This record gives sequence, C-alpha cells and structure tokens, in this order.
Amino acid sequence: MLERQTKDMINIDPLQTGGKLTEEARRALIEWGDGYSVCDFCTGRLDEIKTPPIYEFVHKTLPDFIGCDVARITTGAREAKFAVMHALAKRDAWIVMDSNAHYSSYISAERAGLNVAEVPNTGYPDFIITPEKFAEVLEETKRKGEVVLALITYPDGNYGNLPDVKRIAKICQDYDVPLLVNAAYAIGRMPIKLKEIGADFIVGSGHKSMASSGPIGILGMRGEWEEIVLKKSSRFKNKEIELLGCTARGPSIMTMIASFQHVRDRVKRWGDEVKKARYFSSKMEEMGIIQLGEKPHNHDLMFFQAENLYEISKTAKDGRYFLYKELKKRRIHGIKPGLTRFFKLSVYGLTYEEVETVLEAFREIIKENIR
Amino acid sequence: MLERQTKDMINIDPLQTGGKLTEEARRALIEWGDGYSVCDFCTGRLDEIKTPPIYEFVHKTLPDFIGCDVARITTGAREAKFAVMHALAKRDAWIVMDSNAHYSSYISAERAGLNVAEVPNTGYPDFIITPEKFAEVLEETKRKGEVVLALITYPDGNYGNLPDVKRIAKICQDYDVPLLVNAAYAIGRMPIKLKEIGADFIVGSGHKSMASSGPIGILGMRGEWEEIVLKKSSRFKNKEIELLGCTARGPSIMTMIASFQHVRDRVKRWGDEVKKARYFSSKMEEMGIIQLGEKPHNHDLMFFQAENLYEISKTAKDGRYFLYKELKKRRIHGIKPGLTRFFKLSVYGLTYEEVETVLEAFREIIKENIR
Repeated sequence: MLERQTKDMINIDPLQTGGKLTEEARRALIEWGDGYSVCDFCTGRLDEIKTPPIYEFVHKTLPDFIGCDVARITTGAREAKFAVMHALAKRDAWIVMDSNAHYSSYISAERAGLNVAEVPNTGYPDFIITPEKFAEVLEETKRKGEVVLALITYPDGNYGNLPDVKRIAKICQDYDVPLLVNAAYAIGRMPIKLKEIGADFIVGSGHKSMASSGPIGILGMRGEWEEIVLKKSSRFKNKEIELLGCTARGPSIMTMIASFQHVRDRVKRWGDEVKKARYFSSKMEEMGIIQLGEKPHNHDLMFFQAENLYEISKTAKDGRYFLYKELKKRRIHGIKPGLTRFFKLSVYGLTYEEVETVLEAFREIIKENIR
Repeated sequence: MLERQTKDMINIDPLQTGGKLTEEARRALIEWGDGYSVCDFCTGRLDEIKTPPIYEFVHKTLPDFIGCDVARITTGAREAKFAVMHALAKRDAWIVMDSNAHYSSYISAERAGLNVAEVPNTGYPDFIITPEKFAEVLEETKRKGEVVLALITYPDGNYGNLPDVKRIAKICQDYDVPLLVNAAYAIGRMPIKLKEIGADFIVGSGHKSMASSGPIGILGMRGEWEEIVLKKSSRFKNKEIELLGCTARGPSIMTMIASFQHVRDRVKRWGDEVKKARYFSSKMEEMGIIQLGEKPHNHDLMFFQAENLYEISKTAKDGRYFLYKELKKRRIHGIKPGLTRFFKLSVYGLTYEEVETVLEAFREIIKENIR
C-alpha cells in the first residue's frame, strides 16, 4: 500500500488547503472510482449526462455560482486557459498578462503560439498589479500587433494579491480586448462572479480550491464567446474541438459535485478566512517575519520574508533544510524543503487551534535556534 | 449521496471493462484523494516526484511495459494524441489515419489544424484496415502536401480489429512519416511494445484499459522525438510545453500505479481473454447474432449484428429500448439504450459464470419476445 506520509499533518501549502476532500467527496470517490463510471448513461457529451446529474451542475449550478452564461468542465485550470488562448490565437498575435501570473498561463500562451507582453508589478514589498500599468502595457502592445486576449491572475499564487479586477476589465473593454480572469485561487474559496467583474472568461481549479480530486478545472464565459471557444467539430457535430470532445470524466467531476454544497457554504464564510489570515500575519510579524504583498491582506495565500529564519539556517545543523525538518517534527507540512527566507503559506480551512499550533511552532523554532 | 445505479451489475460496455479499479486502486483513491496530494514532495515536475514513486513508474516501469524510450502521463489518450499532433503540426500539413479511428483522433487533428486523409476499411462485414490501403493513401496524400504524422488505431473501438500494425509501421518508415499507434484498447489489456511494432509513438488510456480512475492517459515515444514533442518552455526550463507543465496529478496517477501489478499480470493472461471472447462470439452466432469485424476475433471488443433483436424491436412494447430494459432487468448494463440491430460489447474480465449469465440473457430475451 502506497501511504501518504503527510496525510494527518497540518498542511499549510496553499496548493493543498482548498483541495482537501469533504466527506461527501470521499464517498463519491469510492462510488465513482472506476475509469468511465460517469459514462454509463452518456449520450455523447460529458456536460449533457443527466445520470449522474452532471448536466444540471454544468449548465445551472456552475453558471449561477460563478456568474457566467456558459460553463464547462476541463481537465484543469491550465487546460481551460489554453483552450481559450488556442481558440483566439492568430499568427503573430499577442496576449497581455500580469507578471504575477502562474507559470502555466505563460506556458499556455507559449503552446498557443502567442507573444506574451507582461504587466510588471510594483515590486518589493507589495508586488501589486495596477490598472494603470495594465492600460500602459495594453497600449504599448497594441502598437506592436494584434492583442487577442488579456489575462489577470486573481489572486496570484505567489503573494495572494487581489488586483482591482473591475477596473482592469473596464480598461480591457475600452481597448476592445477580451479578458480572462485566472481565478484558480478564488473560485471555491471566495465569492466571485464573472459578470460582476465585467470580464469575458473565468477559470477555476477543482483540485486547488473546490475540494475536488484532480485533475479538474472549470471554464466560464460570456455567451458571446460560446461559438468561438466551444466550436464544434466539422464532422462530429456535438463534440467541442477545444475540449477534444470530452474532459474530466470519472471521479474528479463527481467529487466536485459531491463537495459543491460545502464549497458554496464555505465561500459565504470568506470574511472569516480573511480575518484568520490577517490574524496569522500579524502574529508572524510580531516574531519579526514580514508579510509581503497587499497589506492588510485580503486572501489566505500569504508570502513571508523571514530574515531571522534565514540567519539561523546559515549555522543550523541541517542548513537550509532546518525549517522544513523542525516543522515536520511538529507534524506541520507545506513549506518547501530548503526555504527559510522567503516562503508562502495558507491557513485556509484551519481551525484556530491549528493556527495556534503553527504559530507556536514558528515561535519555538525561532527561540530554540537563535544564538 | 450520489449513487451509481449500475455499480453491482455485470457491465459489458467495452469502455468500462478494462477500467474497473482493483482493490489496491480503491485504497489508493482514499489515501490520495485530496486535490494535490501527490504534490507534497514535488520539486517542479510530476514525472520527477520520488515520493510517491511516480519517477520510477514513469521513467522505468512504463517504458519497460510498453517498450519505448520515453514515457509521460497525460490527462487522457486524446490529450496525448493532441500533444504529438500539435508538436508536429505545420501549416497546411496532413495526417493520415485509419477510418476506424476514434472520434477523438479526428478532433485532435482538427484542433491541431491538420488536414485529415483517411484510410478506408474493407467495409462490411470485416471492416479491416489493410497495409496496402494505408500505403495507397499515404502515397496519394504525399502528392497533396506534407504528411507530418500517420495514426493507426490498434485495436479500433468499434469492431475491435487488430490491423497488421508492423507492416503499416514499415510502410510509414518507407514513406518517412512518423507513426502513432492509438493503443487505448490495447495497453493494459494485451501485450504490446512500441519498439516491436516499429512505430514512433504509442498512446494508452488509464481509465479505459489500465484499471485507473480517470482522467489519465499515457504517451510513449522513441527517444529521437523527445526534444520535439516534449520541448521545454523558453522561460520555465523544466516544464514541458505540450504537457502545459503538469498533467494527471492526484488520485488518477496513484490508482494507475496501485493497479499496475495487477495490470501487468492480467496482460499475461490475454490468450484466455481472446479465447473467452471467441467462445462468447460463437454462442451469440448460434442464436443468429452475427459478429462483424475480424473472424476469428482477436480482441475482447466485439461488434454484433442482430437482425432477430431488430425484428423484435419493431413490435415490442418498449420499441427499440426493449433490449436495454430486458438486460437491465437481468442486471446487465453496457449496451446503449435504443440499440438492437448493431451493438458492441466486451466480456473482458468477466468470469465464465458471468459470461453464461449474459449469454442466457440473450437466449431468454430472444425466446420470450419472438413471435
């Protein structure tokens, strides 16, 4: 049996905190684990399966939840981004994206053959993407060639910053460039609606933020894009080309559906999560560990700078691995082995007792190791 | 709780028989169900994760098993096909594929912007793809433009025919066109090795034939293609563009690994499966139901023509749904609702007792309904 060593630890890896399964999802896993289990009553397209109720989820529940006209399931957020980029790509065309974008946004653009123009952030210590800079880069890039798409990461996966996405959407509208919102760390954690933002596409991740088994993502869009991005095959009239006809069949979609009630409820408690994150951040700062990115912070994903831990690592027995090992001893996982000076973490979904355990761990580690 | 009504039925849908999880895989599902569970110790690339042992599986076990130099995990067989096509695609270029190809091969080519030239089969009742026809179409297509890839489906998903893939590979070599073998119904069911075939790429499906939870596929290739198909990002030096940096993280890869021992063993018993399929086919023919495709048959996937069931459907109370309902009453699932005259099925993995149950069902249904 292949065991997961970290299963019962407190996991503060931002990648992991929103993807933990609910009990309902665990039951769905077993019930629907077999390869093509959801396809028993498929009549040709995943999103049209009525037993189990995938049709209802994709065509009613999801569009409602993320405020879009049309939604689809993909095999991941990156695959959703690539589908849009590939559908809109033209020879020698450009995409404008924020420099805080996830690496997979860049690689999706590379795969789609798009030139990438990046909107720089404000740099240390806030790393904010401003609407002004976004407009500036759009303006510049329009002079170089056709801009077929803009992308904003909301929040980004490094600092957990939430840029002013409504103003950015307005700017993109003014420049007549469609905007894709990469909300892999938003959908399933915090309230977010495409139409309230005023953008064209929105992308989410099931395994990152919707308590689902991977790989699975979601793609939402305004109705006007359906015919372009979800264009059907010339020969197989009900199959959508950019989705290769079918995507996340199997337990991934079923865990997403099973977790949905819980996910919808937890989104309503987003205010509490932000409060908890800010509390955690303030306590870390009391230890001399500085939170970078937006302050006060508006998301559970936080980036820290710890000069004191870095100093300790220079002489610690385990060198730069000391922090990882000290945390592991205390059954806390999620800061990458070897990092001490800069690291990100998330306390999403943790109880306050667990938050205190993590804080106390940092306090002890500093106290015990400082010379 | 979302129940799977068909869970305890005998399932003869060819899509389902090879994807049923093993007990080991069911345990892996629960252990690794959380979104990014396998990423706890990731240092940047899925196939390089050592804990759990994905590295060993992708770089040693799989290449051994399918006889290739380089293997990767994808989010499905179709995504593997698309990755190869997209990497090799050129403006106005062609792909030659057998007309028995799965719809997703066609759509992958469409998505990659390739023109498709099809090799016709021999038609009713065998529907065989001959090497001679393959050569003929390659020859013709070469006159129209550049042929960047050929694809052969082995076996196809309609008739379960196994074309002479070695001769087809030799022909492709002679024409200097790389060949992709779509082995979604072969890898995990029957012995197959890329290098013994002499082709360039081989594609398999975890949820179809490797007792894995979907979505997951595999891609194997000769070493010479690695730099082209697995080209790395210009900026993120360890990320492979065509895989968008990462693919089937989560329980899909873990169920594949957990089932692998069983899958390797069952492949050795392939002769028994073929014998069982032939036995089933002969008994169906005794009832006046004709097996189409290759005869004697060499694969568990079989296509039948039942004029007697079709005649019954014309006057049956439930019309063309009568067969589906009669089978359902007997707790047999897998022939699409509404089909009576032409249908495919598979007895892969069924015990002989279950095979007799299915045969007896057909016998009864014919006897009870004929007028």
